[in-house]
Amino acid sequence: MEKYLGIDLGGTNVRVAKVLENGEIIEDIKRPSLAEKGKEAVVSNIIEMLKSIKDYKECQGIGIGVPGPVDTKRNVMTMSSNLPGFAFYNFADTLSDIFKMPVYLDNDANAAGLAEALVGVGKGHSIVYYITHSTGIGGALVIDGKVLSGKNGYAGEIGNLIIDRDRQKYNHLNAGAVETEAGGLAIARIGKEILGDKIQSAKDVIDLAYSGDSKALKIIDDMAYDLAVAMSYIGHVVDPDIFVIGGGITNADDLYFGKLADYYRSLVHDGMKDVLIKKAILKEPGITGAALLTKSRR
Amino acid sequence: MEKYLGIDLGGTNVRVAKVLENGEIIEDIKRPSLAEKGKEAVVSNIIEMLKSIKDYKECQGIGIGVPGPVDTKRNVMTMSSNLPGFAFYNFADTLSDIFKMPVYLDNDANAAGLAEALVGVGKGHSIVYYITHSTGIGGALVIDGKVLSGKNGYAGEIGNLIIDRDRQKYNHLNAGAVETEAGGLAIARIGKEILGDKIQSAKDVIDLAYSGDSKALKIIDDMAYDLAVAMSYIGHVVDPDIFVIGGGITNADDLYFGKLADYYRSLVHDGMKDVLIKKAILKEPGITGAALLTKSRR
Repeated sequence: MEKYLGIDLGGTNVRVAKVLENGEIIEDIKRPSLAEKGKEAVVSNIIEMLKSIKDYKECQGIGIGVPGPVDTKRNVMTMSSNLPGFAFYNFADTLSDIFKMPVYLDNDANAAGLAEALVGVGKGHSIVYYITHSTGIGGALVIDGKVLSGKNGYAGEIGNLIIDRDRQKYNHLNAGAVETEAGGLAIARIGKEILGDKIQSAKDVIDLAYSGDSKALKIIDDMAYDLAVAMSYIGHVVDPDIFVIGGGITNADDLYFGKLADYYRSLVHDGMKDVLIKKAILKEPGITGAALLTKSRR
Repeated sequence: MEKYLGIDLGGTNVRVAKVLENGEIIEDIKRPSLAEKGKEAVVSNIIEMLKSIKDYKECQGIGIGVPGPVDTKRNVMTMSSNLPGFAFYNFADTLSDIFKMPVYLDNDANAAGLAEALVGVGKGHSIVYYITHSTGIGGALVIDGKVLSGKNGYAGEIGNLIIDRDRQKYNHLNAGAVETEAGGLAIARIGKEILGDKIQSAKDVIDLAYSGDSKALKIIDDMAYDLAVAMSYIGHVVDPDIFVIGGGITNADDLYFGKLADYYRSLVHDGMKDVLIKKAILKEPGITGAALLTKSRR
């Protein structure tokens, strides 16, 4: 079975792993990413970590998941708020020269989606749409085992989909963007507005909903509807075989997946109602998907 | 240069053509489609037309554009309101047996999009999103010369995208669907509401707007914004290299393409603003694209 090196590079931590073609993680190292020390320090750190992996030379390639949009043709990030200096910085070629193997870069949500499509719950399906339902909301479109990154690496920036144009604008996203209405931060904000200062996080709202609080249940119900509206857009554009939904909020799947599916089906054509909507199953989709970039793109 | 047979099958008329690989139409026949006489009559008619094409045997395959969603794996329509009896009716195999060449079926909007991507204004671009802006609104996603049809053939059913959930529901589409707010029928309806019974069609509104009527100009401006909202959804899902917009309303392109582009750019991330938004250029995208299905899918 082929083996790949995967790097999950975040603003705080970086992970490096050796991963089998079937998604199994053989070896795994985690360190601070040293983003504050500058890009050269970040890359030196990664090189050291890669070299410390046992038998790293037997791997077929290196895949890197990064926190921002990527131009996959030029193998560079096009925007980088969490990793200063990384926009248009080509460190893939540096790694490729040192390790004598191909290096592939992609957005972390795209990497996670690829993992779920290749070795997770999306396995065997032709068109997989992956959604991270977490603090924010992101997505990835995987067609026949390949991620569609888009012209500028912005395919999957679904947090910015407007689900109701009459809502308030909160940040750089559109007014009424699904992320600012149905993401984790949004649930915390709405919870505080409606339930008061006892709410500090999305989890507080979810816990109250589980206890049967009607106001908290209403917040979760609205969240499910708003997310379903955004999913109906994705459905009409790509008509996927399966939606795979991962991220922290999906720990409360029994609270909202049923409603989400019902609302989705109410918003699409009859012939589209048989789509699968499933919870992600991989424990480590980010690092797994980064490693599988080589399998997907080589 | 390779040659293909193309069939543009509508509820009223059917066209059959011999088309060169570069999109040039060599020979072209049009007849009533005989939909009211039943599916066997429709197919017999098509067989006759194909056989009357000079040197039809030298063609590499037959492509058929049909007015409804298609399961491209099974080569059948999955829904057919304009061609009674054609849902799940496999006439592609019948034609393939008779003409001893491959036969490919796809939705007519997908065929038109494929034509613009391969030999029209989208030529040379990797991700082309084609929109028909006509009586209704439809779309097609073409990635590296191949149409994404989706699980059930519903990819591109963008007329159903909700651009404002607070509007009225008019037909089988969602309340606030872009087709019922920015399509040709919608412009006629809104025109009549605002400008009175002198408005009979979208063209009447457009003519008034050209003459400088401020109410008509406002209707066109709202239409451009609503269409831009739907395009922003497509942009965040697939981040195309180019939007190609065809259909009857684009005859008024100088009236609204500038606004459309400005509104689109105001609704997407900074890194996505360099997308191209162009008017379709092919005179006969439907029949050309049907013929090119063989080139794309063989």
